[in-house]
Amino acid sequence: MNGGVVWLDEVLSAIEEYWAPRRVGTVNDYDVKVVKVLGEFVPHAHPDSDEFFLVLDGELLIDLPDGEVRLGPRDIFVVPKGVRHRPRATIETTLLLFEPVTVVNTGDAGGPLTRAAVDI
Amino acid sequence: MNGGVVWLDEVLSAIEEYWAPRRVGTVNDYDVKVVKVLGEFVPHAHPDSDEFFLVLDGELLIDLPDGEVRLGPRDIFVVPKGVRHRPRATIETTLLLFEPVTVVNTGDAGGPLTRAAVDI
Repeated sequence: MNGGVVWLDEVLSAIEEYWAPRRVGTVNDYDVKVVKVLGEFVPHAHPDSDEFFLVLDGELLIDLPDGEVRLGPRDIFVVPKGVRHRPRATIETTLLLFEPVTVVNTGDAGGPLTRAAVDI
Repeated sequence: MNGGVVWLDEVLSAIEEYWAPRRVGTVNDYDVKVVKVLGEFVPHAHPDSDEFFLVLDGELLIDLPDGEVRLGPRDIFVVPKGVRHRPRATIETTLLLFEPVTVVNTGDAGGPLTRAAVDI
């Protein structure tokens, strides 16, 4: 058997839209998502949850109230609950995210980039 | 600033003990852990939680009640709550895990491989 195994690279290669998360797993009431990003996302905060980022490929910059962080492949960062952040990327970048199923990608900002996570 | 960024490869290179998880992040009441494995772990189940595996390097086999799954780099698998599983590896393998902070590595089996996650 190999049922239930998710090949991240297969999922990533099928993603055609930036900033549109795909759900690759569920752990109790948390989602594991991947997302392909390029350009600037909307600054936002998640009032009720921390947000976990793992860079798979590329480079992610996150603007935070006290500066920016720069994440390369296999770098991890957790944005604390309630902290405003703007993710951005100058090259195509892929991320793994881990957060409660109730978290919306644009947080308290909303707007046109809001996407529900789509199952693979 | 680059405070708070965790370089997974730096953490992994410092790990000297197999099956001993290191905590690389916390997302609300969940831990993000990495672990270096080789050989066979104890068969066990987590009665109260799913368990998420992402292979970073190497190959992980998980014996399950209905067969085994085989995971290579960037493959994901979620062991459902209550399902008995035995992780094993024939080559040195590194994993990223997500699970509630209350989860113990050996689940309901206990025994000499039981380790609390250690902060990096």
